[in-house]
Amino acid sequence: MGTTATADADTETETVTAGVVGGSGFAGGELLRLLDGHPNVELVQATSREYAGKSIGGVHPNLRGRELRFSEPSELESVDVLFTATPHGVTMEHVDEYSEASDLLVDLSADFRLATEGQYDEWYDGHAAPEYLDVAEYALPELNRENLGSADIIASGGCNATATLLGLKPLADADILDGAHVVVDVKVGSSEGGAGGGAASSHAERSGVVRPYAPTGHRHEAEIEEWLGLSVSFTCHAVDMVRGASATCHVFPDGPVSKKELWTAYRGAYEAEPFVRLVAGGSGSYRYPEPKAVAGTNYADVGFELDPGNERIVVFSAIDNVMKGSAGQAVHAANVALGFEETAGLEFAGLHPVGSP
Amino acid sequence: MGTTATADADTETETVTAGVVGGSGFAGGELLRLLDGHPNVELVQATSREYAGKSIGGVHPNLRGRELRFSEPSELESVDVLFTATPHGVTMEHVDEYSEASDLLVDLSADFRLATEGQYDEWYDGHAAPEYLDVAEYALPELNRENLGSADIIASGGCNATATLLGLKPLADADILDGAHVVVDVKVGSSEGGAGGGAASSHAERSGVVRPYAPTGHRHEAEIEEWLGLSVSFTCHAVDMVRGASATCHVFPDGPVSKKELWTAYRGAYEAEPFVRLVAGGSGSYRYPEPKAVAGTNYADVGFELDPGNERIVVFSAIDNVMKGSAGQAVHAANVALGFEETAGLEFAGLHPVGSP
Amino acid sequence: MGTTATADADTETETVTAGVVGGSGFAGGELLRLLDGHPNVELVQATSREYAGKSIGGVHPNLRGRELRFSEPSELESVDVLFTATPHGVTMEHVDEYSEASDLLVDLSADFRLATEGQYDEWYDGHAAPEYLDVAEYALPELNRENLGSADIIASGGCNATATLLGLKPLADADILDGAHVVVDVKVGSSEGGAGGGAASSHAERSGVVRPYAPTGHRHEAEIEEWLGLSVSFTCHAVDMVRGASATCHVFPDGPVSKKELWTAYRGAYEAEPFVRLVAGGSGSYRYPEPKAVAGTNYADVGFELDPGNERIVVFSAIDNVMKGSAGQAVHAANVALGFEETAGLEFAGLHPVGSP
Amino acid sequence: MGTTATADADTETETVTAGVVGGSGFAGGELLRLLDGHPNVELVQATSREYAGKSIGGVHPNLRGRELRFSEPSELESVDVLFTATPHGVTMEHVDEYSEASDLLVDLSADFRLATEGQYDEWYDGHAAPEYLDVAEYALPELNRENLGSADIIASGGCNATATLLGLKPLADADILDGAHVVVDVKVGSSEGGAGGGAASSHAERSGVVRPYAPTGHRHEAEIEEWLGLSVSFTCHAVDMVRGASATCHVFPDGPVSKKELWTAYRGAYEAEPFVRLVAGGSGSYRYPEPKAVAGTNYADVGFELDPGNERIVVFSAIDNVMKGSAGQAVHAANVALGFEETAGLEFAGLHPVGSP
Repeated sequence: MGTTATADADTETETVTAGVVGGSGFAGGELLRLLDGHPNVELVQATSREYAGKSIGGVHPNLRGRELRFSEPSELESVDVLFTATPHGVTMEHVDEYSEASDLLVDLSADFRLATEGQYDEWYDGHAAPEYLDVAEYALPELNRENLGSADIIASGGCNATATLLGLKPLADADILDGAHVVVDVKVGSSEGGAGGGAASSHAERSGVVRPYAPTGHRHEAEIEEWLGLSVSFTCHAVDMVRGASATCHVFPDGPVSKKELWTAYRGAYEAEPFVRLVAGGSGSYRYPEPKAVAGTNYADVGFELDPGNERIVVFSAIDNVMKGSAGQAVHAANVALGFEETAGLEFAGLHPVGSP
Repeated sequence: MGTTATADADTETETVTAGVVGGSGFAGGELLRLLDGHPNVELVQATSREYAGKSIGGVHPNLRGRELRFSEPSELESVDVLFTATPHGVTMEHVDEYSEASDLLVDLSADFRLATEGQYDEWYDGHAAPEYLDVAEYALPELNRENLGSADIIASGGCNATATLLGLKPLADADILDGAHVVVDVKVGSSEGGAGGGAASSHAERSGVVRPYAPTGHRHEAEIEEWLGLSVSFTCHAVDMVRGASATCHVFPDGPVSKKELWTAYRGAYEAEPFVRLVAGGSGSYRYPEPKAVAGTNYADVGFELDPGNERIVVFSAIDNVMKGSAGQAVHAANVALGFEETAGLEFAGLHPVGSP
Repeated sequence: MGTTATADADTETETVTAGVVGGSGFAGGELLRLLDGHPNVELVQATSREYAGKSIGGVHPNLRGRELRFSEPSELESVDVLFTATPHGVTMEHVDEYSEASDLLVDLSADFRLATEGQYDEWYDGHAAPEYLDVAEYALPELNRENLGSADIIASGGCNATATLLGLKPLADADILDGAHVVVDVKVGSSEGGAGGGAASSHAERSGVVRPYAPTGHRHEAEIEEWLGLSVSFTCHAVDMVRGASATCHVFPDGPVSKKELWTAYRGAYEAEPFVRLVAGGSGSYRYPEPKAVAGTNYADVGFELDPGNERIVVFSAIDNVMKGSAGQAVHAANVALGFEETAGLEFAGLHPVGSP
Repeated sequence: MGTTATADADTETETVTAGVVGGSGFAGGELLRLLDGHPNVELVQATSREYAGKSIGGVHPNLRGRELRFSEPSELESVDVLFTATPHGVTMEHVDEYSEASDLLVDLSADFRLATEGQYDEWYDGHAAPEYLDVAEYALPELNRENLGSADIIASGGCNATATLLGLKPLADADILDGAHVVVDVKVGSSEGGAGGGAASSHAERSGVVRPYAPTGHRHEAEIEEWLGLSVSFTCHAVDMVRGASATCHVFPDGPVSKKELWTAYRGAYEAEPFVRLVAGGSGSYRYPEPKAVAGTNYADVGFELDPGNERIVVFSAIDNVMKGSAGQAVHAANVALGFEETAGLEFAGLHPVGSP
């Protein structure tokens, strides 16, 4: 990691240049929004094969009025930090090119999330640049902050894995997951499917759904297993929201656990984290984590309930899949790597009320 | 019209055979549902190029368990009544073939809605079989019941035109539209766009929209003008529902009109109609027509309010675009043409509560 | 059970009189819709304290045009079959009165679902008429058909319990649940909360939610445990739909189970059932049970997937909570009890497309 | 206007103290969010009768973690600027008290929007403090910027009026409205109804609606008429979104108008405005103003289309009713009054994709 950014004493006013490869998709558009408003970043390029030559505001209507236009992916400029929001498989093919064009590469696809080539053989279709797998660092600062400062490649985690990992990590740290049995039931919004989409994701077909998808064998199991050291029974459901991922983890520990132990575990894990909020019980309509309360933000809300009758801990975690589950996590990790304020560019507090954000 | 159906004395127990060309789309699927449950119809064929060989329940999950499978459009069977739910332009190309295969042809596309070739030159891309335009009868029984009994070809009206015409017809009959100025603002659901659909109609992009589309020059203006004899200023908005079309007509009559005259006009027009309900004022949440209250049904709810300060009549009408605006209207017209009970197969009362139906 | 209905040879044309106590709520309104269209039922009364004197169509807009008006609950008429759709606790207080007014009482509340007073002490606030608990029969015909014919009181099951029980029953019958560990994660629509509702259920607050509620200790656990003989870890989430309950059961059996055994179990349990459809895999958008595909109908769609890596069976079941989960189940049970066609009045096939039904 | 703020040379770093009366509603909550993130504001108090003593994040989940707690309205602190987000009628009763507690009072209710007591007699239930009507200035900077600098009381406009006025003002300025006939058809989200709400605004009843409300005689007509000098035929529809107001103005000018004249009028009116964006035509999904594209922001998107066949101009304008239509407009006006950057605290760019925001 050799950007000049971290060498500077006054990091708050320092600016780095940034580019986005694949800026017309949902995660890419979110990167454009975040980098456009980031106090330490000058956004100099956004690429898109389909929309090259068009203004970024023509594709992302929230960015109307910005002057930046998409350029061809082949005309990559050198930048301090390059974010790639391309379909899975693209970054691993171009990683040499991307690394040359930047000091820090932050990839939002699945291409560098896992540790070994063997995992890619098992869960994906192999890997085209396995020599970089050791180089890449997992982006989630709550799990991997200490390794981000020296990273050359950062791999943003999967949205469903992120929600699950943030819910379960405090239990793992407190050894409560040792020998535990874990079922994860995730509910996700339509933006997970990405921009475009066919008949199944059309409004008429997808409105109001509770649709099981990838009921078994979801690829995010691999990330979860890698970081927690245990396998989980994972199932996803598409529900009627645009942004959001909500993970409900049903945890059956090996022995009895008290509510106090849970609070200790969760407070210990997260009280210093700028983007994790504990939400457990209380009064009012919002007693547990919900995606609505974090929509558009980089927050993860995490909470739990004890079910003594079933010797079960129910853990809830909610994120915005486009933010904490993708672009926000990427910018957060880059902030850590570049020595900026961790919250720089990620200050938006979210909305209330908000519908299907 | 030469089907044997109407020749029978005991029409209630009589059965005709029916086929559906283009059964995999939304209107086609609704025809399958209606004909499957119709007491006087034996549904013998449904065609679909894309799904030939597959069961109709694989495409329309509400029809799971039915034995009928889609067949190739090229293998058309002879039936008493043939419904065509094909994209605009298909029926006019195949009208000879379709007419030969059936005694009664009911087309749900725009191909035979207008009266003259000149209208098709102006509003569409011309017409391939203009000699049939005189033969075809407009389906809407509330406007054209007297001509349906002898029809060989019936053309189901456009959904937005249907909503508008049902709202305005009583005013036309009562001469209140003479010299009036009319603005029509229609709100429609996503099923109007048909099955399939690209990025703009994806759930992520279309959820929660209020999106102007065809703000000027909408083709349904032609139908409205033809039947009312006056031109209207017509604008459509896509809103977040799946089924439904709601027309708000702002009518500025030439001279003062009283509420009593309005009631007389609307009651006179519709008190004997089995599928039009007057909804104007009253208490409770549902004081005016709303698409929700007619979802899944063949009802049109119609109501109005007088705005003396602006010398304006505001007319509201709400239909299910897939039903009264398409398949339901077609079956209703066929019932009239075939001498069945008008409500046969169309008895479903709708749901309460119901979300975005 | 002494209605004259079953004594008649020609049950199809026979008619019984029916009344609905509590007809202004969602389940009550659905009863009115079903009974209004039931070929063997003459609906003679609907009571409502709040709306006494008003037409039923003023409260339930889908029933516009019906002549029936709500009457005071105190003016109960004698009928052959009386349906009660009152808040929990009301029927147990009035069970003597209701039984006197009818030959068959069908209660949609929780008042007679459980078997013993002890269960009501544990899960509810005790019971006011425990002497009737032995008399009452659980409504779900798929579980209890053989006891419905002679029933005097029928207790419609809870919607979440119904979805869960229909998913798990075949596994119980095939002894696959013996020693199994079961987690149930249910997603429900807003109609479960009933008509009315405060700030938390307002559109602005509830739109787009994935909201954990009753994450532990849900009362429907009691019904499930009673019928399956095993306890389940049960959690509910409110999601953005109006009608629908979707239960995902994560089943960890004691030993290995093959897909073939599962198909045998499910086909054996349901192939003769008129209202259960097996949906497991296949192509297209709708590969598993979804509430949308059964909205407005009395169907339960049930399916499963095997997860060998986690030694898990994932069972999906989807119902319309207002129908199969309440009013439809009640009418179905009454049909069985009265000797009518089981599907009488319940023929509606559902809609496609349909949004948040 | 006597705040010390404007007296300062270096306004950018200056900070004023602010309070919010009525902070538990939707507009009040939005004020808390905006002021909490405002670089020139120290938020010192938020009052709420219902939630006094509770943290603001308990009511507005997006503000979780903030330390501020609601206080009783009776314990009003002195601040530089006081925002009141109370139900209509409250501020006029307390205007003396509020004015004493602050140098600048910004009211979000309707209490000081209109110019004369006569208007309040006609459109509302009279006025309790008519002597302040001359003092108050209308907040919308696009209409009234020049008078805000010296204001002591600022009255934030109605959301529907704001959308309409921003759409029509350029035509008024260009004399195109002289003698014109104007129909305004507005579509609004559920947050317009405010927090809380009864049966009609419950999720089950309001989901998927297109519901006419206030079809005639809407109070916002008064504001529109006052600022444009012509009366408009105004009708509102509730549609399925949470935030957003979309006004479609059908304008029939006295004589022919060219597209070039329209562009000149709109560009002239808005090219220097920081919060108005012109959106008219182009390619992609978002060719016209839509509430989704401005959700959570203070932008108003405005566009138009010419309909020569009907001698009509169709004007579209879209705002977030909670922001540009209420709290954002209020903060914008306060920024002008206090000499801050107009965009201070209002920089959020909005989201893409976003559902029913």
